[in-house]
Formats: sequence, structure tokens, C-alpha cells
Amino acid sequence: MNLADLSCLTPAGSMPLSVNPRLTQAQAELTRPLSVIDETGQSRTIRIPAERGLTLYVDKRELVTLMTLGAHPEWLVLGYLLNQRLIGSVREVESVTVDWDVGAAAVRTRDGIARIEERTARRVVTTGCGQGSVFGALMDDVDRIALPPEARLRQSQLYDIVNTIRVHDSTYKAAGSVHACALFVDNRLLLFVEDVGRHNAVDTIAGWMALQADLPRGERVFYTTGRLTSEMVIKSAQMGVPVVISRSGITEMGLHVAQRVGLCAVGRATNRRFLCFANAHRIVFDELPGTEPVATA
Amino acid sequence: MNLADLSCLTPAGSMPLSVNPRLTQAQAELTRPLSVIDETGQSRTIRIPAERGLTLYVDKRELVTLMTLGAHPEWLVLGYLLNQRLIGSVREVESVTVDWDVGAAAVRTRDGIARIEERTARRVVTTGCGQGSVFGALMDDVDRIALPPEARLRQSQLYDIVNTIRVHDSTYKAAGSVHACALFVDNRLLLFVEDVGRHNAVDTIAGWMALQADLPRGERVFYTTGRLTSEMVIKSAQMGVPVVISRSGITEMGLHVAQRVGLCAVGRATNRRFLCFANAHRIVFDELPGTEPVATA
Repeated sequence: MNLADLSCLTPAGSMPLSVNPRLTQAQAELTRPLSVIDETGQSRTIRIPAERGLTLYVDKRELVTLMTLGAHPEWLVLGYLLNQRLIGSVREVESVTVDWDVGAAAVRTRDGIARIEERTARRVVTTGCGQGSVFGALMDDVDRIALPPEARLRQSQLYDIVNTIRVHDSTYKAAGSVHACALFVDNRLLLFVEDVGRHNAVDTIAGWMALQADLPRGERVFYTTGRLTSEMVIKSAQMGVPVVISRSGITEMGLHVAQRVGLCAVGRATNRRFLCFANAHRIVFDELPGTEPVATA
Repeated sequence: MNLADLSCLTPAGSMPLSVNPRLTQAQAELTRPLSVIDETGQSRTIRIPAERGLTLYVDKRELVTLMTLGAHPEWLVLGYLLNQRLIGSVREVESVTVDWDVGAAAVRTRDGIARIEERTARRVVTTGCGQGSVFGALMDDVDRIALPPEARLRQSQLYDIVNTIRVHDSTYKAAGSVHACALFVDNRLLLFVEDVGRHNAVDTIAGWMALQADLPRGERVFYTTGRLTSEMVIKSAQMGVPVVISRSGITEMGLHVAQRVGLCAVGRATNRRFLCFANAHRIVFDELPGTEPVATA
């Protein structure tokens, strides 16, 4: 399934869901050419990812400027508002209008956001991410999260997921310098998002998920190229995803949160190698010597 | 020169400089052991970097919570205040008192910070960094920066710097998941700082630099393991460093800023390869075929 297949599910498509917000579908170039000088002293042309400011106005009030690749700004805006806990549901939003000519996203809510000044006042600058400013206390909602206790990740499934990402066409392959996040249900890739800030990528996925009337049933797995920081783990848990796989490592706060919410945190996942940092009981080792091998694509 | 040699230069040492603030020298463990399960289903012990919250109180007013490795919290606090333009000089600060038991850094200023509420009100969430929230407009001060027009980077010097970093003992080697920044004058490493957020690392260097009465003369070069984002480039330029070398790539905003301030931005620097993204006229190619080779350590 690619993004084109999914676009019909969004309210901007031909089958609007009346409860969902109206969204523009703003388009922008994702890479640009750049002439560089290499170690031989010669000039050559490479591509770099685009990076553009998107200033959010909520009911005409300026909230924040996000620096983004610009692939899915409307989903990003919704996911940002959700993950900052400024809205509880996308149904509170009437419309998101993105205009790249002015770098603005105008959000119109149905009933306003209560106490928005107060709720955006406190700052926590967190680790290694593109959205360091989390309004409100980072851990406030953690203990309310209930991940499905029975959720499991098969080792063969993990290898399939890592391989799917490896062969996926991407801005990273074309231009580097972006982070990718992806949502899988069982082994099936539902959405692959890249951004210059990896928290933009996970917020975009959160925004997209919140728009779906029906997500396929199955084990939800989240993949990220970035480190498993506290924010990444919290956001995964908030999206109801009990397993996160990363190419990279984990930070101490990411570990604490994963342990606390029962999230299976897998890192250093490349070339059929990985480390499980937390909740390894969720992993089913079906590719160990003596177990029946499962072919990976 | 290592950190122990430098400690005598700080005001907390035995030779306080009266104009500099008094600083604690809070200590903390930088890594911790973690039992993980690997792809064979076996348990083993690795180390992960520490990550702790440090809440800044400026004249008893809570400002922000930084998530940090905790190696040099006092320099980090000073660099943060400088790079956020909340102070113009470390001399405005009377003392920084860090207490890890409560995760707090108490900053006492000599005369208060004028209009602190107003100056911390506007947010820009920037790219891929550990301190996404830059108070005030990101580009406001860019055009006031004047980097020395004659500064040059020799190719042999670049290779020396990359090699110095490669062989340097580090938390990254022990535990992964941290970013490193380093300040060189000519080929000499003055300060090497790691943190879970790479903007903490560069802020720490800025704080340390601001405390030095005399920095050695020579070409200043900044090294970072992270991407050359707009913030990284701006902060380097603000520190008067005209050349930045990265192991990673560049973002579009990072490129714009480097071009605008005349900063030589070099990325993808590993194994005697590199790409110069901006201001390649600052590079002296002294290791091309036909030039006299310079031995690298």
C-alpha cells in the first residue's frame, strides 16, 4: 500500500468523513539540487532535503513554527496538536489550510482550545529531536496509557519489517539528512513518513492514524531510524503501539518510559541483528536454531 | 589538552577570575549498565548513556528543563543562556549552582534579565536537535555576525581533525546514542563534549568558551557528529567559528545560513572523504595529487 492508495481515506479526498476536518493537500518539492565541492576539489551536484518553516495559527493565534520537509503538512499539524495534547481528537478541528507561499498552516477549531495560553506555557526541552518543546509535563499522561498485554513481535516479523524499510524508496536515499518513521500492522507497511525532524515524522503518522475510521486489525509496530528517546516512546505508546523498532539505540529516559508503560523497545536493528532494551517477553524467537525458519522477503 | 587541564581556567578552580560567575562542579555518572536480550535470545549487559533532567531557575524563576547527559552542566547552562540570547555575557551571571539530587540549576544574575517573560514567549521548533525551542526569531541576529574573511581550512588539517575525533575516547564508544561536538584551534583539540542532545553539546562549548580569558590564536574549527542544521550553523557563527565539519549532511536551512554568514560547511567527513556544501573558497586543497602530502596522526 502506498500513499496514493491511502489518500482516498483522508477527508480531503472524494469521500469526506463528516466528522473529520477539511484538509488542504499542499504540495512541495522534497529535495533540491546543490552544487558541492568534494575531496578531489571537483564540483558535483547532489540533492539535499528541503526544509521549510510552517507557522501554525490556531484560530488566528500564532502557536509555533515547525521546520519540516513538507511532505504531509496537514497530517503533521493534526499530529502535532494531538501529541502536544492541545486537542483530544481530530474532530475538534474544523479545517487545516496549508499555504506554502506564506509558510502557514491555519487551523480552525470547532469550539476553540480551552486555556491555550496556560497549556503552552511550560517547556521541556527534550533529547535529540525535531520538536524539543513539549508543552506541559512530559510524563503527565504516561500512567494512563494501557498497551495490550498480549501483543507480541515475532523475530521473523521484525526481520521482515527491517527489510521492508531497507528496500523502500525514500528521500533519505535520494538526499540523506532526514529521519524516517513507519507504521506497520503485522508485517504490512501502512504509512512511511520522512522529515528533517524525526518528531515531525512521528507526529505526521499520529495525525494520519487519527483520521482513519478503520485501521487494519493486527499487531501494531512502529519503526524509526532515530534513537528511542522518551518522546519517541511516549508518542508510540500514546498511539497505542506496543512495539517500537529502531536502527539506533536508546536513551535512559526512553528506557524508563518503555519499562513503565510495558512497551517492547528494540534497537540496533540491522542485518538480522538487534537488541531488546525493554519488555523482551513480547518477542517470540521463531528464527533461532531449532525453530522453523520463516522466509524474509 | 584534556578537561582536567582546563578546569583550572574555570572560576570554580583555584584561580577565580573575578568577572566570571561562580560555578559548582557537579559530578554524575555518564553511563549505566543495562541487561538486554540480543537476536540469539541470550541476555547480555551493555551500557547506555545517562539522561537526566536539569531544570533551570533564573533568579528563582523556572525557565526550562533540559535533558542532558550531565557531563558539564554549569557550562551547559551558561551556553544555553548565551545562545538563547537571554544574556549577552557570562559576566551578567553571578553564580550557577547545580544540584543533581534535585535535578536543578539555580542561576543567580547580577542585575536580572530584562523582559524575560516577553523574550521567552516566541517559539521556533527547529530541526533534529536536542533544544528545539529557540526563544525569539531564529534569524534575527544572523546578519550582525561577521566571520573573519581570511579564515581557511587546509585539507590536511581537516583530515587531522577527523582522525583526532576518530581515536578520541568517548561515551559514544562506551554506550552509543550521544552526539559529540568539539572545538579545535588549528589542529589542536581544545574541548570535546558529548550529550544526548547535540545542541546541549554545542551550548556547553559556547559556555566554556565564554569563560576563557584567552583562547589560543589560530583557525577555529568546530566539529559535530550531527547534521548541519540552521541552529548548528548559527551557533557556530555566533561563537566566531567560520568552519564547521560534520560526519553527517546538511539541511536546507543550515545551507541558507552558512551561505548568508560566509561559513564554510563541510559534511560527510569520514575516511579522507568530504563534501563542502558552502564557501568552498575557504578550503585549501593541500592533499591533492601533485601537492605536498601532510602526514596525518
